[in-house]
Amino acid sequence: MAKVRVGVAGYGTIGQRLADGVAKQGDMELVGIADMAPTLAIRALYEKGMPYNLYLVDGADKSKFDELGIPVAGNFMDLVNNVDIMLDSSPAGIGLKNKVNIYEKAGVKAIFQGGEKNEVADVFFHGYANFEKGVDKNYLKLTSCNTTGLIRTVDCLDRAYGIEKVAITIIRRVADPGDYNRGLTNALMMEKAPTHQAVDLMTIMPHINATGILVHTPVTHGHIITVLAHGKQKITKEMALEAFKKHPRIRMLRMADGFMGNASYFKYGRDLGHVRGDMYEVGLWEDSIVESGDDIMYALVIPQEAVTIPETMDGIRAAMHMQETREEGTAETNKYLGIGACKDLGLGF
Amino acid sequence: MAKVRVGVAGYGTIGQRLADGVAKQGDMELVGIADMAPTLAIRALYEKGMPYNLYLVDGADKSKFDELGIPVAGNFMDLVNNVDIMLDSSPAGIGLKNKVNIYEKAGVKAIFQGGEKNEVADVFFHGYANFEKGVDKNYLKLTSCNTTGLIRTVDCLDRAYGIEKVAITIIRRVADPGDYNRGLTNALMMEKAPTHQAVDLMTIMPHINATGILVHTPVTHGHIITVLAHGKQKITKEMALEAFKKHPRIRMLRMADGFMGNASYFKYGRDLGHVRGDMYEVGLWEDSIVESGDDIMYALVIPQEAVTIPETMDGIRAAMHMQETREEGTAETNKYLGIGACKDLGLGF
Amino acid sequence: MAKVRVGVAGYGTIGQRLADGVAKQGDMELVGIADMAPTLAIRALYEKGMPYNLYLVDGADKSKFDELGIPVAGNFMDLVNNVDIMLDSSPAGIGLKNKVNIYEKAGVKAIFQGGEKNEVADVFFHGYANFEKGVDKNYLKLTSCNTTGLIRTVDCLDRAYGIEKVAITIIRRVADPGDYNRGLTNALMMEKAPTHQAVDLMTIMPHINATGILVHTPVTHGHIITVLAHGKQKITKEMALEAFKKHPRIRMLRMADGFMGNASYFKYGRDLGHVRGDMYEVGLWEDSIVESGDDIMYALVIPQEAVTIPETMDGIRAAMHMQETREEGTAETNKYLGIGACKDLGLGF
Amino acid sequence: MAKVRVGVAGYGTIGQRLADGVAKQGDMELVGIADMAPTLAIRALYEKGMPYNLYLVDGADKSKFDELGIPVAGNFMDLVNNVDIMLDSSPAGIGLKNKVNIYEKAGVKAIFQGGEKNEVADVFFHGYANFEKGVDKNYLKLTSCNTTGLIRTVDCLDRAYGIEKVAITIIRRVADPGDYNRGLTNALMMEKAPTHQAVDLMTIMPHINATGILVHTPVTHGHIITVLAHGKQKITKEMALEAFKKHPRIRMLRMADGFMGNASYFKYGRDLGHVRGDMYEVGLWEDSIVESGDDIMYALVIPQEAVTIPETMDGIRAAMHMQETREEGTAETNKYLGIGACKDLGLGF
Repeated sequence: MAKVRVGVAGYGTIGQRLADGVAKQGDMELVGIADMAPTLAIRALYEKGMPYNLYLVDGADKSKFDELGIPVAGNFMDLVNNVDIMLDSSPAGIGLKNKVNIYEKAGVKAIFQGGEKNEVADVFFHGYANFEKGVDKNYLKLTSCNTTGLIRTVDCLDRAYGIEKVAITIIRRVADPGDYNRGLTNALMMEKAPTHQAVDLMTIMPHINATGILVHTPVTHGHIITVLAHGKQKITKEMALEAFKKHPRIRMLRMADGFMGNASYFKYGRDLGHVRGDMYEVGLWEDSIVESGDDIMYALVIPQEAVTIPETMDGIRAAMHMQETREEGTAETNKYLGIGACKDLGLGF
Repeated sequence: MAKVRVGVAGYGTIGQRLADGVAKQGDMELVGIADMAPTLAIRALYEKGMPYNLYLVDGADKSKFDELGIPVAGNFMDLVNNVDIMLDSSPAGIGLKNKVNIYEKAGVKAIFQGGEKNEVADVFFHGYANFEKGVDKNYLKLTSCNTTGLIRTVDCLDRAYGIEKVAITIIRRVADPGDYNRGLTNALMMEKAPTHQAVDLMTIMPHINATGILVHTPVTHGHIITVLAHGKQKITKEMALEAFKKHPRIRMLRMADGFMGNASYFKYGRDLGHVRGDMYEVGLWEDSIVESGDDIMYALVIPQEAVTIPETMDGIRAAMHMQETREEGTAETNKYLGIGACKDLGLGF
Repeated sequence: MAKVRVGVAGYGTIGQRLADGVAKQGDMELVGIADMAPTLAIRALYEKGMPYNLYLVDGADKSKFDELGIPVAGNFMDLVNNVDIMLDSSPAGIGLKNKVNIYEKAGVKAIFQGGEKNEVADVFFHGYANFEKGVDKNYLKLTSCNTTGLIRTVDCLDRAYGIEKVAITIIRRVADPGDYNRGLTNALMMEKAPTHQAVDLMTIMPHINATGILVHTPVTHGHIITVLAHGKQKITKEMALEAFKKHPRIRMLRMADGFMGNASYFKYGRDLGHVRGDMYEVGLWEDSIVESGDDIMYALVIPQEAVTIPETMDGIRAAMHMQETREEGTAETNKYLGIGACKDLGLGF
Repeated sequence: MAKVRVGVAGYGTIGQRLADGVAKQGDMELVGIADMAPTLAIRALYEKGMPYNLYLVDGADKSKFDELGIPVAGNFMDLVNNVDIMLDSSPAGIGLKNKVNIYEKAGVKAIFQGGEKNEVADVFFHGYANFEKGVDKNYLKLTSCNTTGLIRTVDCLDRAYGIEKVAITIIRRVADPGDYNRGLTNALMMEKAPTHQAVDLMTIMPHINATGILVHTPVTHGHIITVLAHGKQKITKEMALEAFKKHPRIRMLRMADGFMGNASYFKYGRDLGHVRGDMYEVGLWEDSIVESGDDIMYALVIPQEAVTIPETMDGIRAAMHMQETREEGTAETNKYLGIGACKDLGLGF
């Protein structure tokens, strides 16, 4: 079977990781990536020997790339015309313009990231929660990083025991490592409640009542979310653990092992030798799980830079009808990304 | 009536504020403070002209004070023998030693701060939640800063509508401004759940089921706590607001007014011209209050340096039987500390 | 003699402190302050009982103040027409507009803060370095916070021993406590060298060759500057110490006393009971002074929120010809602000 | 020629990177690494499939490894007896014990990291500054991370133009990413001057007079050092640039390209796909280079986790007499670590 041909628009924090993710899928081909300027990410790509072809979006000044000797494979339309599906990780709002002006005209499917409005897509998509809704669709929008990780855990409990209501507190990292265009110094910052991640969860899982509060914190290595979930039945700590432990995209963490917080998890990804030290799985602390009457409460960490990559690969599989069901689709993604292999190691992950 | 004579052991972050708090009570007299070494706090006291008498605890080297010209009024026993009640804000663990070796022998009452174990005291005390239990007792222990502020809000709802269960997430500031002996850098740190503040709440309010998760954050200007409370009846946002607005030790905050987070609240205290910029009230964001089904969720900020001072003053009033009820006791404290005056200003606080 | 009548435009971080500073000068009268909106600073002013009259600048919506019950004394022209001199701490760029459109027409003198361009003023002013140049002038511009503190120390050595060259490294705090409109998270940020503070120093002290590098750091409690100064003669550590110790606006700090860094200095200001915990003096670490061959190197901390207040008061004295010389002018300012009193306390400050 | 057999004691932040560095040297063999407990670093090694053999130091509890299924190759003596040279990155102080109790008795050479005292070694070593002194020696001690990077740049100018004096300001990152055992929150912390890095520089380069001041900052991604260097002749900006650009272990950075500070440099290493995102080279900002009279001033960033790895590899080459001169020794290290390849890419690095 011919490989599905994929392009990536926007080679920023997410775009770089989307490209790496596609390159790892045995049944996909990364045709190339598109960007605007010789950013540090593009310079790093060049220093690595241009493993991916570079295309320039409209408005890019090719002479700046020529000066540096960075080879350019063509313009954005050359890329779009040469793919089956685009992953659009352009700055927020550009995705919609690309859809209307380019993708629709070229008859190319596309998957947008969380920064775009829901209206950009036919389906607001999550690989585990609603894979089947994405099958054969032309335009998908992924959930944002927090929502993606959160839904993994809520969907996990929901399928095992039934969930009716969740209340979340998001302790949000305010910038990515290396960010200089945003930041917060010695301050926690409130956001008007309810936080959009709860609203998004309800859009994807309409049978659940969700609300929550978000607080920004001056750190870069991962959001932490506490979840209070109310089930159709009482969910004990043991029941929650049993469900979480089986989920390929959830790693169980214990403080006693050294997983003290989000920074340990970031460090662990680096020590694993992952490219950029990225982690695809969310981490969920065993030590955090407590019962609140009939409800269950727990805390997870969202490695914000890479967490949406697996679900985006799932999205390609759905939109391109490479697989039909969540079980098949996510299993293929997991296989190629090496997700879940750690489950058998006895490390308790 | 003779003023109640009060001494303060340990002139650190809490001790300084206890001394200031006592000095403001028209019906108490601050006999003096005791410490060990010419710390910056003591030097500042000297630079201000020694408004409080300084006594030296055992092991202090008086020559170090003499060198600097800092006047010493006597030793610790001179202080203890001259007071009705001691406020002990010594380093954790010292309070118990002081009780056994000194206060009991001298027949002096004492109030300990949250760092001591509960066993040090006859009553684990909170001015609003269990004032009457402290009346005439010899030894009280105050709730810690987070618990003190948390209980204000839970007790407020409980008295108005009845509360059965709370689940909290504490986003804990990791150090005070000026701390160099502890810190965290670009990391969130988990703590094993359930967090002790929930356990402490249940000790004070045994009819409530409480649990929660605590996450340390690298900031200095105040903890933020989210609370999910389950009432005996459904508590709407309006009902919660109505109750909170009446509480003298809760200030209502709105992001639109500029209260963006814990740092705004800290700054506001400075701009008010309060000594050290301290705030006695907790801040509670109107914008954070949301309903989760029948439950109510909200977020508050705990100004950790000063928040326990009013409840400690309440404790003196209870232990010394200066007043008999929570209404009378807290009203006197509030009057002398200027708490609640803002309620009438139309600023919506 | 009639008091000099002073107004303050812009009641932000600097404006609040300028108002407080003027209010403390026995020979000046604070006619009022002007601002645009009921910010937290204005609300705090109201909660304190309106110690200063409030005037509204053009474009302000008076109904917003009326709603809150905040009394308004008049509009900006009412203030300007009623003063001898305006202290303009409006946002950068507004000062120039105010000068051209308002102050010049009203025949009122003005002093601008460091955010304005030098062209706004007749003299780029520093109370210790060039007081006499400001005498009788209509428009002065103050040096910025870093430059103000830096010049105090360089001028101090220069007058004692002669300085020919300085090279500085500024470790810049990136935000003030409470700032939410700027910030940096887990990152040091470079700035193109040479840093403007070195250039500004040369403008004020043209006989000195100055250059330097500035690095932004994610903290809020004071800049730290290291200075390498080359004298006309070798300046030993003892010589430097002797000069610094005499300067009223320099406090000598020692790590052994507990002054571990900028946060200790901030805390000390709070413990002194200063309004907002402000410090007017720069701190200079004895432990930091080292000889580099014939050069002398040292580190100082700049309490950025309040450090320019004394030199602005000096500026009023110069512009209004209240005194004629730096010795007289700065002495009066120091007397009213309580600067230098600590020198006699034996604390070594 | 038989490969030199190398062991690594202590698999922490430095030890992990030493092991990786040795594994990349075509003329060395990594026999194994030794540690004490199943830390996260060891668990990551296991999850990666045990690319390195693990030996247990005295006091380790083998059953903890067995439980997790982590294979153990033997005990510490098995490792030591099987190598030509040990790289000791044990906690500070343990290296000396290992030397006296183990290495000397086993007749094995060793290289210690900066945390040990100088007395542990025959030579205080830097690959570029004094390679020849290390040739055939039994015990070397590496300079610390800051000193290693600093000396690269000073030695570079010294060999080109002659350097007589340097004065440095170190803006020190206070923890590594993932550290929970140390930290600083919203504070700059002074250290008593002169800082040890200046003293260390003089030990390695005794013809240079060096001093400096160190300030701790609450960040994790690299120290920044400003250097003021006084040459035997005037060194212009162009002269400095020319020398720096040729040095394989110095990368030239420009803010305009996106290298805004230490966090950009950290991010660039991740984007390059380096294991753990590590950078061996120091970064030096072109935009920071300024002339101060006849002196030259510049700023560099030290990627603290990996910067000493190349010089340690140089140390093995010297101690084992694999090469005779700094030119030969460092060239082999650079070749195997891929250092300097970026120089030809036209990216201006």
